[in-house]
Amino acid sequence: MKLGSLKTGGRDGTLIVASRDLTRAVAVPELARTMQVALDDWVHVEPRLQSVFEKLERDDLPEAFDLDVAALSAPLPRAYQWCDGSAYLSHAELVRKARGAEMPASLYSDPLIYQGAADLLLGPRDDIVLADEKWGIDLEAELAVITDDVPMGVSPADAAQHIKLLTILNDVSLRLLMPAELAKQFGFFQSKPSTAFAPVFVTPDELGDAWNGSVLSLPLISAVNGKELGRPNAGVDLDFDFPALISHATKSRGLGAGTIVGSGTVSNRDRSVGSSCLQERRMIEKIDRNEVTTPFLKFGDVIRIEMLDTNGASIFGSIEQTVVKYQVAQ
Amino acid sequence: MKLGSLKTGGRDGTLIVASRDLTRAVAVPELARTMQVALDDWVHVEPRLQSVFEKLERDDLPEAFDLDVAALSAPLPRAYQWCDGSAYLSHAELVRKARGAEMPASLYSDPLIYQGAADLLLGPRDDIVLADEKWGIDLEAELAVITDDVPMGVSPADAAQHIKLLTILNDVSLRLLMPAELAKQFGFFQSKPSTAFAPVFVTPDELGDAWNGSVLSLPLISAVNGKELGRPNAGVDLDFDFPALISHATKSRGLGAGTIVGSGTVSNRDRSVGSSCLQERRMIEKIDRNEVTTPFLKFGDVIRIEMLDTNGASIFGSIEQTVVKYQVAQ
Repeated sequence: MKLGSLKTGGRDGTLIVASRDLTRAVAVPELARTMQVALDDWVHVEPRLQSVFEKLERDDLPEAFDLDVAALSAPLPRAYQWCDGSAYLSHAELVRKARGAEMPASLYSDPLIYQGAADLLLGPRDDIVLADEKWGIDLEAELAVITDDVPMGVSPADAAQHIKLLTILNDVSLRLLMPAELAKQFGFFQSKPSTAFAPVFVTPDELGDAWNGSVLSLPLISAVNGKELGRPNAGVDLDFDFPALISHATKSRGLGAGTIVGSGTVSNRDRSVGSSCLQERRMIEKIDRNEVTTPFLKFGDVIRIEMLDTNGASIFGSIEQTVVKYQVAQ
Repeated sequence: MKLGSLKTGGRDGTLIVASRDLTRAVAVPELARTMQVALDDWVHVEPRLQSVFEKLERDDLPEAFDLDVAALSAPLPRAYQWCDGSAYLSHAELVRKARGAEMPASLYSDPLIYQGAADLLLGPRDDIVLADEKWGIDLEAELAVITDDVPMGVSPADAAQHIKLLTILNDVSLRLLMPAELAKQFGFFQSKPSTAFAPVFVTPDELGDAWNGSVLSLPLISAVNGKELGRPNAGVDLDFDFPALISHATKSRGLGAGTIVGSGTVSNRDRSVGSSCLQERRMIEKIDRNEVTTPFLKFGDVIRIEMLDTNGASIFGSIEQTVVKYQVAQ
């Protein structure tokens, strides 16, 4: 099953069930007006949504309409909890090297999760609107899971059953704001602007053999201005799987329904597959040739992030965003 | 006007208007079912809520009921954005000294805000439930403002007009988890469990002359097991006011309606007024006598946080919480 949200209907949008090929959709106000409402009562709502999805796939719903991806907000237009892991340490090693920061030894044994902001999430075609190119605007292509209510202190073994949906996202990052911000020791704030999401969240059964309950083993493809940046496999070189990240996140708190847990930037040690962010590529250039030639994103640049199944079909739909200069409202 | 939320009515509770003395209340489902619904349309809902408040104060509402503070959740039981500043640098200096951490020079010129988690906020009488006393459980008494939608890049001068409500809170902190977590450089996660809030949010007009639009000049009183810990004045020794914090938070993003912006632990340089957290007191003991005698919180300990107006009346109601050992559900 694939679920998204139209921008219409208020701040939380309007929940839709989308067809597997993302060409058709139907609103389901009688089941749940919004994605959060569905997640708040997932055990009851999910089977009913599945039944709508099956009818939609059979073309058995006269009220279905053609899906315009540009009309979609993030599947959760605003969320109560968005926490992002750092599961691929080859990414962490490269970007910290670029910042001149140490790689603490604890990162190799203990997952790292930072607290993200989720009051204003971006849809799959929304612009990345920022005031200054000099902030070092970068994309980060990631995978994420969405959970139901997770109790405090959940074990990795028990955490897996709380994964209800998956998606991909662009964790937009402002590289040149990070050193000064991280020097203050309390993590990211200004250097992580609004995060953008794929058109849909999908249930694990949509992923077939590529999903083993903990790890999704498919390439995550990202491109800048139509040129491929990378296609690392999300199932390769991850140091912590999603159940490990969820367990880490619940040491001193539960997680509310609709929590989004990110993988961190997908990164493989095999450099031939490229990168999921510009900062990695820049660091590799510096290491290999002692010269950085790849710039950060500029106004007008277009990024694209997508994951295809083994038949070449888009699982979550694509994220396609243009970087646009922010104009202060008068 | 004073607004709170009953725990009943679902995950977001039921919005109530409370009397000034916090003894009577009335639900307002015809105006807004929940606090978030009210904040999402504040410009229209606020005058209607004010009119209910005036009737309640005149004892002109037959449907009003006696208010049981223990039946209240946090005024926002879950929020989309909770970001916490560090406005009182005397606190920052002491707790960093206690951690053996540097005080970056940038903290004196540039506000520090960390991204908090808000999917599960605690009510004014909810227990602080944690698995291990050895984590160094501490309270942090703070002031906070709640905003409407704030545009990206707002100036401090324009930020003030977005402050719609104020409250006090307990930013529960796990001191002995912090050094290892902050060493990973991405800020707090496990070391900041669920935050607890006062019974009500209040509109600025409830604060009289003590509120100048940017700073609230009244003592914030905290106690542990009935013994006063401190009563620093929130209007003294703050290095950044709320408009400065809000402006800082919007450098690269807007803030959604219902954003909670915290002041950080209220702290005065005059040591005779005591502290708003145990870590400060411990550090002062170490500096003065080279011996720490104040322990962190233990299971069974009770904390209390309150702010009184110049007539001695409780503005926000009190936060009273017991520290309780977490039992993993079977």
